[in-house]
Amino acid sequence: MDIIKGTSSENKIWARNCWYVAAWSKDLAEHELYPITIINKPVLIYRKKSGDLVALADQCCHRHMPLSKGSLEGDDLRCMYHGLKFNSLGRCIEVPTMKLCGDEVPENFVVETYPVVERHGWVWLWMGDKEKADDALIPPTTGPDSPDWFMHQGHLDYEANYLLINDNLTDLGHIAYTHKNSFAGGRSDAYFNQPRVQKIDRGIRITRWNTNSPKRAYQKGSADLYDQFMTYDFLVPGVLMMYQGMYEAGSAEACEYGMVDKNLEPDTASFTSQAVTPMTDDTSRYFFAWGPRMVEHIENNQIVEGMWALANKAFLEDKVTIEAQQKIVNLKTSAPMVSITDDRGPSMFRRVLDSTIEEENA
Amino acid sequence: MDIIKGTSSENKIWARNCWYVAAWSKDLAEHELYPITIINKPVLIYRKKSGDLVALADQCCHRHMPLSKGSLEGDDLRCMYHGLKFNSLGRCIEVPTMKLCGDEVPENFVVETYPVVERHGWVWLWMGDKEKADDALIPPTTGPDSPDWFMHQGHLDYEANYLLINDNLTDLGHIAYTHKNSFAGGRSDAYFNQPRVQKIDRGIRITRWNTNSPKRAYQKGSADLYDQFMTYDFLVPGVLMMYQGMYEAGSAEACEYGMVDKNLEPDTASFTSQAVTPMTDDTSRYFFAWGPRMVEHIENNQIVEGMWALANKAFLEDKVTIEAQQKIVNLKTSAPMVSITDDRGPSMFRRVLDSTIEEENA
Amino acid sequence: MDIIKGTSSENKIWARNCWYVAAWSKDLAEHELYPITIINKPVLIYRKKSGDLVALADQCCHRHMPLSKGSLEGDDLRCMYHGLKFNSLGRCIEVPTMKLCGDEVPENFVVETYPVVERHGWVWLWMGDKEKADDALIPPTTGPDSPDWFMHQGHLDYEANYLLINDNLTDLGHIAYTHKNSFAGGRSDAYFNQPRVQKIDRGIRITRWNTNSPKRAYQKGSADLYDQFMTYDFLVPGVLMMYQGMYEAGSAEACEYGMVDKNLEPDTASFTSQAVTPMTDDTSRYFFAWGPRMVEHIENNQIVEGMWALANKAFLEDKVTIEAQQKIVNLKTSAPMVSITDDRGPSMFRRVLDSTIEEENA
Repeated sequence: MDIIKGTSSENKIWARNCWYVAAWSKDLAEHELYPITIINKPVLIYRKKSGDLVALADQCCHRHMPLSKGSLEGDDLRCMYHGLKFNSLGRCIEVPTMKLCGDEVPENFVVETYPVVERHGWVWLWMGDKEKADDALIPPTTGPDSPDWFMHQGHLDYEANYLLINDNLTDLGHIAYTHKNSFAGGRSDAYFNQPRVQKIDRGIRITRWNTNSPKRAYQKGSADLYDQFMTYDFLVPGVLMMYQGMYEAGSAEACEYGMVDKNLEPDTASFTSQAVTPMTDDTSRYFFAWGPRMVEHIENNQIVEGMWALANKAFLEDKVTIEAQQKIVNLKTSAPMVSITDDRGPSMFRRVLDSTIEEENA
Repeated sequence: MDIIKGTSSENKIWARNCWYVAAWSKDLAEHELYPITIINKPVLIYRKKSGDLVALADQCCHRHMPLSKGSLEGDDLRCMYHGLKFNSLGRCIEVPTMKLCGDEVPENFVVETYPVVERHGWVWLWMGDKEKADDALIPPTTGPDSPDWFMHQGHLDYEANYLLINDNLTDLGHIAYTHKNSFAGGRSDAYFNQPRVQKIDRGIRITRWNTNSPKRAYQKGSADLYDQFMTYDFLVPGVLMMYQGMYEAGSAEACEYGMVDKNLEPDTASFTSQAVTPMTDDTSRYFFAWGPRMVEHIENNQIVEGMWALANKAFLEDKVTIEAQQKIVNLKTSAPMVSITDDRGPSMFRRVLDSTIEEENA
Repeated sequence: MDIIKGTSSENKIWARNCWYVAAWSKDLAEHELYPITIINKPVLIYRKKSGDLVALADQCCHRHMPLSKGSLEGDDLRCMYHGLKFNSLGRCIEVPTMKLCGDEVPENFVVETYPVVERHGWVWLWMGDKEKADDALIPPTTGPDSPDWFMHQGHLDYEANYLLINDNLTDLGHIAYTHKNSFAGGRSDAYFNQPRVQKIDRGIRITRWNTNSPKRAYQKGSADLYDQFMTYDFLVPGVLMMYQGMYEAGSAEACEYGMVDKNLEPDTASFTSQAVTPMTDDTSRYFFAWGPRMVEHIENNQIVEGMWALANKAFLEDKVTIEAQQKIVNLKTSAPMVSITDDRGPSMFRRVLDSTIEEENA
């Protein structure tokens, strides 16, 4: 695979007909304007008095002034440059100097709107053909609004193309090395078990038993080693939904490959939702939430802090890694690349993404 | 109109046969070297012992070392790299190592000179064909050297193409919004009167009565509301000369559209000179002076401070606006643009500029 | 000559079949990873337990992760991303997930290696065809490991193309101006004597007597003026080896042009080794060592400090000069350039370099 397929002006490198995570719901306070660039398009999101969200192109139809520099008037939005007022449908409903002359606002005075849905604690934007926007395509993830899990949430901005981050997230092989001192608990050797990688609709599914996983500091159990089970789906354009559980040693052996026996009770379990959103060709925003089961949280409200500290340490390890990789990629050397076992996930997901993009352009 | 016509290497986006403001006269102290890049050309300006100005290409004819890193020797200029000495005509008059050998300096050892004129407190450079340089084309503005006005002067550097700044300055519609809390005194509604926009030689003329203008803090009059009259010419390449007067309420109605009765005495009046100079494709320098009538200044020397503080607040509002607009423009989205009444000034001036550029290239 | 021949992607601007200085030997501590980009190629250098050096491409053969982010395991190198382990021959000897499956590492799992030689206190890399790498082509310089000289060593990074730095170093004319207040002791007039410039194998040789050179602060002699003799070779790709001696006034006249009588005893003498290494198209690393004869150092261990302070002052003067020149060059004006006597060295060396590049591409 090409490591990065060139810039968006040269190649088609984005899927458009899909839901991108643009923000955490909590980031959209009432009467705040939230700007973000997604696949090189400036977008502005805000919340109406009803609480419903609006997503508009963040460029006035007059002279491309970012509307996010303007201000809300009720549910409408006033551009700070010449005072054009837009309603939440992107329709310009007032041009002050035209109003003065009694002129109607022409029908082509509009800014693009983007289908926006709030679900699982996230704000999802559809960047493609509006008539194809379908809520059912929103990945069925579990977020901070779940009654079953207690999650913290955050984000990191990357100076890197989103494909490199997707590669990272669809590969478990790097945990033993990049995250040796965080997720791998100091022991590379415990993390070599082969994951099962399966093609699923609009993505891939990865599952793995890590036998002999060192006990986490925040675990209640008394054993030193556990069998860790991980399963996650990674869906277009770059959304990860992962369950992890620490089970009594020996559990892995007792289960079918890539599966966990649902009757087994984990000592501790967590869920994480993550999403990679391409902002521009070489910048991306990475959203993540993580936390234990609500029942565990109620018993010990420090568990989530332990998980969160560990996850943030690991995410910074990834950021250092991927941004360093991007700098080498930028040198555009002609050095060849080889594929390894760990690439099954990244390669399979890139094929899914490529097909999605090809279908869109067909 | 295209919002920005591409880079200078692709398109003709500059007028060359015109006078650009390069500096304030006061910035050219004796024996100081003032470098500035104008339309992508490095220029160096300095003052001779006589006080006359010299403008040379800021690149030695030897290896393009900027001469502004060198030093003056009388009225001559010594390059700091190999010691080439240039006289104020751009002629190399000494090459140290050639002098040692008794060799004459060849005739092609020259750097470009630019016609330079000091007028109205400004230093004007002609960047085009020298034989066409004509002082009469210098906009007849009024500067800090005027006996009738008392002005402060300054400049701001922009990370933006100059066309976006010209658009801003040829449009009064944005005052009610961008400058609601500065020039508009907190009241967008007072600033909707339609200006008169006229084509004049090498530019446009804009006039407007703003009825019910809130009294400025620095005004002496006792009324709360005034009728504000503004008139300005905006000339190639981007020079603004504006008179403003605050008149007794009702004055506007008594006057012809776009005119002020010269017998009317303003409560307060001011003059501002401004100039936009393209440095490179995406950077510009914006020069401005502002102040009250000398008679008002003599009576109350705090008026100029009030005007200056207000103007500087407003200029920073413009800088925030235009630099934000430039960032969106840089994303090169395909979003369409519409025109509004406020564009009469910008559109008319862009046509003037386009004609000027076309004539030059004909 | 073109001042810079365009970017490496457009033109051939580098010699490849030559030894580039990559580091000072002392910078390669045991078990430290030293990354540097040379002619746009990322390289990693480290020292084996034996003390021998290894130079590898600093990009894993898997996904171009910089290996310099990894860690040493004995003499082998572990990539921090997926744990690929490379031996010092660039051969991948372990892919953890393949090892788990009992798979052999394929033969094409390799990273480029670069011939590396440690000599004269420097680490030299051969960036071209390996079979042509020949130690005999390493410039026969004198470094901090010499028993005859006592040198300090350092480096500066430039935001400039390396050709502009080579030009600077092959021209003595600029000393009188750029270095008037450092090397020239405040007196431009003392530095006009013409150097002798000769073509030698893979470079040029420059020699000069500067008569009436002001006494250096660190000199022991009692006279105020000396005759300074300088001789240096400047070899592909940009390596300078210079001897300087301060001799009793009148010595120059007594010697043959461009020569020094070996029986003359200098009041003080120094040796400097310098090297210019192109990192990318517009960045370079400049290495330098400087110091007095060991016999002088033993007598007065402050001499080296005086020389070092003077040299560092002068090197910063060059950096300011050349980076300013580069900024003007970046504007790509069409201003013509002329040649002067001082260009004999730069022109002759550029021809040597051009021939080298042409031969390589033939």
